[in-house]
Order: sequence, then structure tokens, then C-alpha cells
Amino acid sequence: MYVAIMGYGVVGSGVATLLKKNYEHIVKKSMQNELELKYILDRRTFPGDPYEHLLISDFTKIVEDDEVKIVVETMGGLHPAYEYVLACLKAGKSVVTSNKELVAVKGFELLQVADEYNVNFLFEASVGGGIPIIRPISQCLAANDIDEIAGILNGTTNFILTKMITDGMTFDEALLLAQKNGYAERDPSADVDGFDACRKICILAALCFGKHVYPDSVYTEGIRKIALADVDYARSWGGVIKLIARAKKLEDGRVSVMVSPAFVQNHSQLASVDDVFNAILVRGDAIGDVVFYGKGAGKMPTASAVVADVIDCAKHMERKKFFGWQDGEADYVASYLESTGSVYIRAIADDVAAAIAKATALFGEIKLLSRDGAPEGEFAFTTAPVSEKELSEKLEGWNGVSVESVIRITDY
Amino acid sequence: MYVAIMGYGVVGSGVATLLKKNYEHIVKKSMQNELELKYILDRRTFPGDPYEHLLISDFTKIVEDDEVKIVVETMGGLHPAYEYVLACLKAGKSVVTSNKELVAVKGFELLQVADEYNVNFLFEASVGGGIPIIRPISQCLAANDIDEIAGILNGTTNFILTKMITDGMTFDEALLLAQKNGYAERDPSADVDGFDACRKICILAALCFGKHVYPDSVYTEGIRKIALADVDYARSWGGVIKLIARAKKLEDGRVSVMVSPAFVQNHSQLASVDDVFNAILVRGDAIGDVVFYGKGAGKMPTASAVVADVIDCAKHMERKKFFGWQDGEADYVASYLESTGSVYIRAIADDVAAAIAKATALFGEIKLLSRDGAPEGEFAFTTAPVSEKELSEKLEGWNGVSVESVIRITDY
Repeated sequence: MYVAIMGYGVVGSGVATLLKKNYEHIVKKSMQNELELKYILDRRTFPGDPYEHLLISDFTKIVEDDEVKIVVETMGGLHPAYEYVLACLKAGKSVVTSNKELVAVKGFELLQVADEYNVNFLFEASVGGGIPIIRPISQCLAANDIDEIAGILNGTTNFILTKMITDGMTFDEALLLAQKNGYAERDPSADVDGFDACRKICILAALCFGKHVYPDSVYTEGIRKIALADVDYARSWGGVIKLIARAKKLEDGRVSVMVSPAFVQNHSQLASVDDVFNAILVRGDAIGDVVFYGKGAGKMPTASAVVADVIDCAKHMERKKFFGWQDGEADYVASYLESTGSVYIRAIADDVAAAIAKATALFGEIKLLSRDGAPEGEFAFTTAPVSEKELSEKLEGWNGVSVESVIRITDY
Repeated sequence: MYVAIMGYGVVGSGVATLLKKNYEHIVKKSMQNELELKYILDRRTFPGDPYEHLLISDFTKIVEDDEVKIVVETMGGLHPAYEYVLACLKAGKSVVTSNKELVAVKGFELLQVADEYNVNFLFEASVGGGIPIIRPISQCLAANDIDEIAGILNGTTNFILTKMITDGMTFDEALLLAQKNGYAERDPSADVDGFDACRKICILAALCFGKHVYPDSVYTEGIRKIALADVDYARSWGGVIKLIARAKKLEDGRVSVMVSPAFVQNHSQLASVDDVFNAILVRGDAIGDVVFYGKGAGKMPTASAVVADVIDCAKHMERKKFFGWQDGEADYVASYLESTGSVYIRAIADDVAAAIAKATALFGEIKLLSRDGAPEGEFAFTTAPVSEKELSEKLEGWNGVSVESVIRITDY
């Protein structure tokens, strides 16, 4: 059975390597289907590469070759990945992708086309790198009504936050180190502003709750504004700051989806997820909390998830997977202003006593936090649960105070 | 499509409840196959039970009813579960079980029969309760060469150890509390002596490495001998004591499998697994370390795993799962005496200085540990890696010393 890879970057070359390295094992797992790489599509040339003879730059060779039954898309980005994948599905080829942007934006449409042409469209590698999550949710937890899903879905921001927490680096210093280590792009916006985590939580929300959630409907906040002062206050509160992406089913059938930094208690399974690791917590009615932990990115972990999907395709060529994923609707995602929870607030005021008195009047019961070396006039506290709408109204009415930081508190 | 349940205890009644509670959701996930409960086999009577009308005491009704396509076995124990399951498979019915003893002892044979009769034999619930682990290993990590698997697989012992660590209870006190809470049987041997964990690691080892590992070939040590002194020394070392079941592939194709208490470092994902929770760590060549965490036992979590398998059967009636699980061989499991690792040793001597000097001569470099309130003559240390065989020889030659405790140290 022939396979083609589109996009010979980090993940694509990992897929080629893995298909060769664990060949016998993979053939066995594929129920004796031999998986042979026939083409690698890339505009670039790779002189001396062991697969140089397979490299092509013309996509039509793949789509027109009836021997190619499985196509791996590891190009990234929306275009031309979307057009290529669509053409492959319509040509009766199963497609495996690691491209979260493609799945988050076009997942519903591509799954429909796959259904229509009786082929598979699989995307385990699009969330959590090599961590098994898509299949466990859609199969292993199938008997559960899932209420909520939350996770640390971006390794770059988790690396930066870990360095701030454990080594006392500032955000800028930690970002620079992440860039040096190859964990962050020169333009780090997709990671540090939360867009990458947003795409992933959209995919997970669609799987868990059955309807497409489009990234542009999700409130997304990154970690640029996190200061070491906040890290210290989180420690005195008994936890750490993590970038948490979460989706929750509401009683009226809508969903609440959000990406933001959040306080996580030390005893949480998410608190000890450090460096570039990812973890995903799923809360089901029968199972309770389940957590999946592992490397959320990187060449071989991600390639491992891609090849697992390729093996699944080889075993079930004629079958379409049933994800129960319908299109999204206007108003399906509730405004973030409706969501409710406790928050942490750090502020500066000339008259701290008066500011705290006013905070108590505004928020009801508050709990003051302390840290060593706090400058004159700084104070911080946590509130009882408050809706986002009320929160912003209260903060507007809090005069004579400079609010430096507002961070949500999770109950995971 | 009709389903029968054999064994209406905790898990069996959970399966009946869940099939009803999430009926619509489950039918959707089963690709519109309606799953209807037809029989519940139990020798006992359940007056007033909502499923009283389905209760039967005659097994032949199930095996002779061609409408019953899926049989759930939640009886536990080897007999008559084994005979019943065998008869059902041979009658062309798919079987789903939560019975770890059955799978650990008869798994290879039953999978062979299932293959022969072109039906499914699934057992996700037999390890880790509701935690998805069987399917992720056999499918999601299929592209990996798995090197090692280790886990906290028994909730009862983990509850007891957690109470010893966090509340300073003795083993006996914690066991009593576990019994009061319904976490431990009146005869707690299967749990506290490690046999339950042993069966589960045998199943995982078979899945990961492809050959049946029989429980009686596995060195198994429970937690009865763990003292609070050991808990304190583990803390001063920077970790906690957990009952760890582990299986590792050796270079010569054999496997090393062992169940024993072990020191786990605080930063390990396994260290923060408390109370009755379970966690399983899988180490693959491409993926690195992946950890699965959740409730390892209990009515609804376990039922959730059973029903997920039932859904899988409903979707693929004609297909047999391919686990690549062959029979075990003599000498496939290496003697535990061959395994190597650092250990923690606690001892008492009249002449501590001389005993430590002798320990240094025997073990090479050792690291002394301390604890508050240690009695006169007590001391404890950790060693460099040493084989189990050498270890027992060295301990025999260590005169004038009473060795109170020897606990292995993990690198997870």
C-alpha cells in the first residue's frame, strides 16, 4: 500500500524516518499491509537526503496516482493544505494530518467530504503532539457524557511559564531562551498570544460536544502580561500559573470556550506539567477526571501520532470514522462575559487600605495574598466567583487604583 | 442489537445503569445500533431492582440465544467466567470483560478463539478501571517501539500509602480505614500483597511486547512491610513510596517484569497520584514518556470502559481486533535477580559507624539519609545501581546489622 507525504519539514521528515525505523513493527500492526512511501511533496530540494529520489514538487502526481491510498499532510497553514487535502479525499484517498489550523477551521467540512467519498480523515497529531487524545475521546470515553475538557496545549508557553516559575526569569528572558532552544518562532505570536492553544481546544470541543467551534468565536488571552509578581502571588496562594485552554458544556446546550492564563492548585495533575510537556484533562459523568500527559510537540512524538493514524487507515481502508462532529451554529459558543469564576487581582494604589476596603465592598469576601519584596502600594487578592461581565463592571468602578493583573482561577 | 450481562455486582450493575442513562449518546456513538439489554445472569435475586425482569440464573439461555450478539462478563474470578466466556465466543458472540484475572491467565487463549470465530474479545476495563489504556497502547502508540511500561495499578494500596504519607497513619491504621471506606476487602491480600497489580502489569506487558506474561512468573512484593520510618526517609530523599508495577524489554528479547514498592521522585508524574487514583506511564522510542491518569476502579469508571468496548463491538461486529498477542514461552520473563537498580536500605546496628563503613565497602558510594526522631542505632542510605543478585549476596555478607527495609528506586 502506497503512502505520500505532503510537506517535508520537521514532522514530515519524522514520519518518513519512523516508517522506515519501525517498519516491521508497523507492518505487523497494520495487519500485514506493507506501507511503502512513494512520494514526498515539497517545493524545496534536499540534496543527499535518503528520500531524495521520492521528492516531487508537483501535487498532481499524488492526486492522480491511484496506487497512493494514504496521504499524510504535514505542510501546516491553511493554503494550499486545504485545497490539496480536499482534492485527495475526493480522489478516494484517506488523509492523515497534523495541521491543527486546518482541522480547527475546516474540520467539519473535510469530515463531511471524507464521509461522502468513504475514506478516512484522521488528525490525532493535531492536538497534543504524540499524546493519544483524539481516539481516546472518540472511542474510549464514548460511554461518557463529557462535561468539560481543559488542558495545557501549548508547549512553548508552558516552557516560558516554567522558566518564570522555577528560575525566576522574566517573560522576555524566558521567551528569548525558548527561541534559542528552538521552542519558539522568531515571531512568537501564535504561541504566546494563545492562538495555537485556541485551535487545539476548538478541535477538542468539537470532538467532546459534537459541534464545530470556530477559533474566531473563542475568547483568547496569551501570557505576555504575566509578571514575576504574579508568579510569586500564585506561589503564596498555593499554585502555579499555566496557560489553560478549556471548554465546558452549558446546561442550555451551548458551550463556553476560553484560552487564558490561570491559577492552578499545586495538587492538580496539571500543576506538575513542566517545560514543553502538555496535559489534557477530560471530565466525564461516569469516569470522573482523566488526564493524558506527554510531549505535546516535537518531530518524533508528532510523527508517532501521524503514523498511528496511517496504520489505522491501512487497517480500515473502506471505513469512515464516525466522529459525530456537526457544523457549528451562530450563538453556539457563549460569550465569555457569561462565564463565572474566582479571579486573582493585583493592583497598585496610593491609599492601599482604602483600595482594599473598596475592593471588599465591590467583590464581597476577598482573600489577601502577600509576597516578599512587594513595592509600596502593591496588593493582591482573590475573589469569590464572579461573572466576567460583573468583573469588568466592578473593575471600572474601582477608582484611584491601577489594576496591574487579573488572572482566572481554575478548579482542576 | 441485544446485550447480556453476566455478573450483576458493582461493575455489572454500573454497566446496566450507564447503558440506560446515556442511551441516546451511546446509540449515536454506536453508529445508530440500538443496544438493548436482554439478560442479566446472576445466581442471586434482586427484588425491586429496575432490571429484575431481565435476571436469569441459567447461562444456557444466553449462549443459545442468537439475538444476543454482545456479552459483558463482570463476574470476576477464573471459574466459571472462563468457561462461560469460551462458550460465548464459540457461539459467535463478542465478549467484553472487566476481569483482569481472566485476561492475565487466559488472555492469549481467548484472543485466539475470538480470532477463530471472527468475533471480538475486548478488555479495556481490566486495567486501570476507566482510564483509557488498552486501546491507546494497541492503536495510538502503534508506531512506537515501546521500551517500558510502569504504573500505579492498584487503588487500594495507593490509598493506604497516601494515608501513610500525608496523614502519618501506620499501615494497619490505613488498611483499616480503606476497609471502612469499602476500598479494601476483608481479606486484603489480593491488593496489599501486589497480586492485583501483578495481573494488570501482565496484561500490559503482553500488549506492549506481544507475548503473554503469566502472573506466576512475575516477582511480586506488596506493601505490608512499609513502615512510617521508610516514608520519612523517602521524604528526606525527595520523593514518595508507591507500589509500582513495571515491565521492561531487555535487549535479548526477554522481558523484566516486577511488582514492588518503590521510591518515586517528587517531580515524577507518578508521585502526585494520590488516593485511589491510578496512573500508567508508557515509554516509547518516538513518543518518549506518556502518562495516563484517572480513577482505576469504582462502579461507574469501570462501567464506562466496559460500555466503550460494547460500543466498539456494536460498530465492528464482523471484525476481530488485532492485538498481536502471542503465547508466552519458558524463560521469556527474566528472573528478577537479573534486574539492576539503585536501592534504599534501612538498618539497625549497635555500632553504626562500623556498619556504615562496611556498607561503603560492600556497595561502593552510598548516600546517607536522615529523619527526625530516628531511634538510636538506626540509619538509612541509597546505593548506586546494583543487581538484585549482588544485592542479596551483599546483604548476606553484612554482619552485625539488622536490615529493616529494602526498597527499590525508580527513574520515572
